[in-house]
Amino acid sequence: MGLEDVLADLSSRHEEILGELVEFASIPSVGADPARADRMLEAARWVADRLGRAGPLSARIVETGGQPIVYGEWLGAPGEPTLLVYGHYDVQPEDPLDRWESPPFEPTLRDGRLYARGVSDDKGPMLIPIEVARSFFRTEGALPVNVKFMFEGEEEVGSPSLDGFIRSHEEMLAADAVLSADGAMWRPDEPSIVVGSRGVAGLEFTLTGASKDLHSGRHGGGVANPLHAMAQLVASLHDEEGRVAVAGFYDRVRDVPEAERAEIRAMPFDEAAYLAELGAPAPVGEAGYTTLERQWIRPTLEVNGMWGGYQGPGGKTVIPSEAHAKITSRLVHDQDPEEIVALITRHLESHVPAGTRLTVTPGAGRAGAARIEPDHFVVRAARRALSEVYGVEPLLVRVGSTVPISELFERHMGLRTLFFSFSTADEDFHAPNEFFRVRRLYEGLEAWTRLWEEVGQSGPSEAGAAGTGRPE
Amino acid sequence: MGLEDVLADLSSRHEEILGELVEFASIPSVGADPARADRMLEAARWVADRLGRAGPLSARIVETGGQPIVYGEWLGAPGEPTLLVYGHYDVQPEDPLDRWESPPFEPTLRDGRLYARGVSDDKGPMLIPIEVARSFFRTEGALPVNVKFMFEGEEEVGSPSLDGFIRSHEEMLAADAVLSADGAMWRPDEPSIVVGSRGVAGLEFTLTGASKDLHSGRHGGGVANPLHAMAQLVASLHDEEGRVAVAGFYDRVRDVPEAERAEIRAMPFDEAAYLAELGAPAPVGEAGYTTLERQWIRPTLEVNGMWGGYQGPGGKTVIPSEAHAKITSRLVHDQDPEEIVALITRHLESHVPAGTRLTVTPGAGRAGAARIEPDHFVVRAARRALSEVYGVEPLLVRVGSTVPISELFERHMGLRTLFFSFSTADEDFHAPNEFFRVRRLYEGLEAWTRLWEEVGQSGPSEAGAAGTGRPE
Repeated sequence: MGLEDVLADLSSRHEEILGELVEFASIPSVGADPARADRMLEAARWVADRLGRAGPLSARIVETGGQPIVYGEWLGAPGEPTLLVYGHYDVQPEDPLDRWESPPFEPTLRDGRLYARGVSDDKGPMLIPIEVARSFFRTEGALPVNVKFMFEGEEEVGSPSLDGFIRSHEEMLAADAVLSADGAMWRPDEPSIVVGSRGVAGLEFTLTGASKDLHSGRHGGGVANPLHAMAQLVASLHDEEGRVAVAGFYDRVRDVPEAERAEIRAMPFDEAAYLAELGAPAPVGEAGYTTLERQWIRPTLEVNGMWGGYQGPGGKTVIPSEAHAKITSRLVHDQDPEEIVALITRHLESHVPAGTRLTVTPGAGRAGAARIEPDHFVVRAARRALSEVYGVEPLLVRVGSTVPISELFERHMGLRTLFFSFSTADEDFHAPNEFFRVRRLYEGLEAWTRLWEEVGQSGPSEAGAAGTGRPE
Repeated sequence: MGLEDVLADLSSRHEEILGELVEFASIPSVGADPARADRMLEAARWVADRLGRAGPLSARIVETGGQPIVYGEWLGAPGEPTLLVYGHYDVQPEDPLDRWESPPFEPTLRDGRLYARGVSDDKGPMLIPIEVARSFFRTEGALPVNVKFMFEGEEEVGSPSLDGFIRSHEEMLAADAVLSADGAMWRPDEPSIVVGSRGVAGLEFTLTGASKDLHSGRHGGGVANPLHAMAQLVASLHDEEGRVAVAGFYDRVRDVPEAERAEIRAMPFDEAAYLAELGAPAPVGEAGYTTLERQWIRPTLEVNGMWGGYQGPGGKTVIPSEAHAKITSRLVHDQDPEEIVALITRHLESHVPAGTRLTVTPGAGRAGAARIEPDHFVVRAARRALSEVYGVEPLLVRVGSTVPISELFERHMGLRTLFFSFSTADEDFHAPNEFFRVRRLYEGLEAWTRLWEEVGQSGPSEAGAAGTGRPE
């Protein structure tokens, strides 16, 4: 049968596909770094080239005002559902560089893992559907479903252009569901499907004391030290119970039904093993919730960076003029990112310590929380595909992190997003020594093949029936 | 008379001396930067060379294990007092470089000010006694007093080698008083003599959460964020009244007599003008004391640097593994630097937030507070010298900052130190755009000449009578 031919073709190309990933991950496509604008374009062109080689996909680069989007489509299966495949070719900054065991943009194979910045988030996972399409076209000359590919280059900076792009390309992007190659499974050996993710809202702020750096001996004791003020202000953001102390922060947070909390508590989760893996001495967070609940169904406020004064070797007796902090908040239904930024800003403004001045600037990411129904047609197809690959029924889980597209597609087009990534949560994708398990690359190729086949068999009417999901 | 000849010779050499300072300040002698070890040695050799040119001073470079000390002496006035002249040829780091209007090591003259790192602290002031000696030798062939010169290269990193050097060279350094070319006068047009300075004690600490940087979406809410912990811990160091909240911190602090506080309140000090000059919105500090009291007679605890997480452009959704802070405390009589470091360490240890681990490392500087009696023979000579140069009686003031040598000479040799520097407190010497007023260079040349002459005339018996100061 056709499916077996496609899988055989993919198996025969394993080495070739791994080589492609090495080439892709060698491009330092760090979107946050303006000095690498050329390398971002190089990565976009690389993706468009690979899409073009995969088959008749009309691959093209579409300008957005920010980083370009790479787009391609095949609509040769009339009557079948249309899946919009999402991924991103930009990667996180690689710092701190001195903690990488091999250079971040020289992909290195060690113990069945490929180490490089972006290899797990999201270059490995997004390469999978491209290669699956290539094998379908090589063996069958067609795909079992209609597929649209959309790869962006701004995911790691909060997808600032995506909202406008979706709104101005609704017809081009029209589909029955979104399949995201971004996201990550919970564990490498236990297949899982994400049915919920948190939103995000960020901002940055500066406290200024004197207009210039001062000698801390001569002036110390007389004027405000912005570092002390920053410590006070940041400390004021949480109460002693680990709750976010920003007025109104929890106002729109729904009480999670006890049944749902019971489900989460029943998940196979070994807290001690989790902490040991991170090298964390203790679980810390909001009182009254388990660690998984705090990460999956409760909002947070995290400082991602805080700095001011002298950081070099030795000492410098200075009272700096400025102190800085970057904050992101993870959101749950129905928190609104804009409102949360406004609430945090109001908190900061009303808690500015004496003798300092506050400046708040918006952060990069803004997205609401997202979910998909367990009986959605792509979820059902994904469960069958994963069961066949792994021999066990996948867990239905949530993730604490954010993929802004889910909420955007839901808001603008009423579409649900299925996260179908083959990276794993432990692959250090925002830290030094990011890696991607090579066998997960191969499992992903098989799973995407089976998923498309399942969706193609289930047909359009079923997709239509469940496509918009049940009301919440 | 001889004095007039010396002053005339100095006047005729004003341009030449300014040129020497430009050459000296062009050497980037940043002792805190290991990459500049060669430039430190270059600076030491430059000083030894200038001492050698000044006259028969047996100038030499003495190794210390750290940065070398430049030494020279002339003991040709038997029966006269011996003055030990102190200064330092190392300078503060120049960062933040982008805020300098002209390059920090290309001395630039603007509006009667010479701009360069170290020009005011301490290269300009320490060059003065060398040039004064040169003019005395050129015109008189002798100095009016015995003089020993000692210039160190570790003042900006807390003089770690000085204690051992003094103890192992007590005979070589024996003198009746120390004359420090380091320190700074209060205001450019109002001569002042410092009769007290604060001590210093520093440390650095790190809070570690997980053993690696984590994705703040995936893990946020579950494990400790060392930046939140750092904010809490730093905020715990002061109470709401601006007092240092470290247990035992004030135990050895003496109550300052009301008469002394009244004297300080009577000083000509315009707080509004002071704040305006710094660009500071408000006075901030310990409740119950005026700004001058807080800077002169009260101890402080200041964070000089605090950092962790992502500081680059854009955002990075990270929970960092580590957060760092550098602290220095300014001390008054009779606080002991070692004890203060131990008390702060104990406070940190007993306030470590959950889920983080603390590491404390000692900071560079350790020195007690110091003072000199208003009727000490060098103070009386300095008052007369300054009255002649400026036409007004100098103010007796204190400074909030630290010159470790005072306490060291007092502890090891029973000597008092007179600060006789011609830099001014507003010359940004620990900030970008450090400058030195050129006319103060010339005033300093005259004042040092008159001071040595005064001490020479007052003779040894008077020095002996007041040399060890009254008991405190």
